[in-house]
Amino acid sequence: MRKLVLLILIINGFWLFSQNEKNQTNEVVKNMKAQELAWNNADIIGFMTHYWKSDSLKFIGSKGITYGWQKTSDNYVKGYPNKDAMGVLTFTIKEITQLSKTSIYVIGQWELKKEKPAGGYFTLLWKKINGQWVIVSDHTS
Amino acid sequence: MRKLVLLILIINGFWLFSQNEKNQTNEVVKNMKAQELAWNNADIIGFMTHYWKSDSLKFIGSKGITYGWQKTSDNYVKGYPNKDAMGVLTFTIKEITQLSKTSIYVIGQWELKKEKPAGGYFTLLWKKINGQWVIVSDHTS
Repeated sequence: MRKLVLLILIINGFWLFSQNEKNQTNEVVKNMKAQELAWNNADIIGFMTHYWKSDSLKFIGSKGITYGWQKTSDNYVKGYPNKDAMGVLTFTIKEITQLSKTSIYVIGQWELKKEKPAGGYFTLLWKKINGQWVIVSDHTS
Repeated sequence: MRKLVLLILIINGFWLFSQNEKNQTNEVVKNMKAQELAWNNADIIGFMTHYWKSDSLKFIGSKGITYGWQKTSDNYVKGYPNKDAMGVLTFTIKEITQLSKTSIYVIGQWELKKEKPAGGYFTLLWKKINGQWVIVSDHTS
């Protein structure tokens, strides 16, 4: 009987652990939905709230590495000066993996519907910092 | 006195932990040096031994996602048919971060010295699988 109780407690523990992991990736999925919404409202600052507000943020693109939240934000504003340039953004998550309690890795595809459509792939490293999940490294190509 | 011993034990514990982390990122740096060496000996299979030998390996490039070790290896062999095409590879690690006991994230730059030089940036996710550090996701642009 005592062994059975122990077994149930262990199984319950694993279940709680897996549920917790699921909720954590759900948080990131929710944030990415919010990013789409912000982008499609031409709200770059809203879109940028999901990036780590730090000089250590890294954005890796074909032109190299951009360091810091401010520079990354400036580049978005310069590259997408108005709603027409921004188009309609869709993210398609291909894989989302929780690597630790405070890190989640996402592989996905992005599409911009507009006169000259654009798109490509991204890998994101999300970290839980001060209780919030934020992108600390974005490689977009 | 007992408190002092406890304090020393705790500090010692942290030191051991940080040393262990250092050694883990060193393993990955060593693997990347071995990859350069293999590449520069026109040994693509040697280069590929540091990738996860699994259908779940992901290689993200401008053309999209390649799934699996075999397909990734085939693409390298096709894209770099001989020593001249392969050139001389140099990796420059910009940042290496241990995310958990079994995951390390690397941001870096690659250069191929040859008649038509090539280069770009990469982000790698390394995982410790069966005691070996291997690349499970490579985004190269």
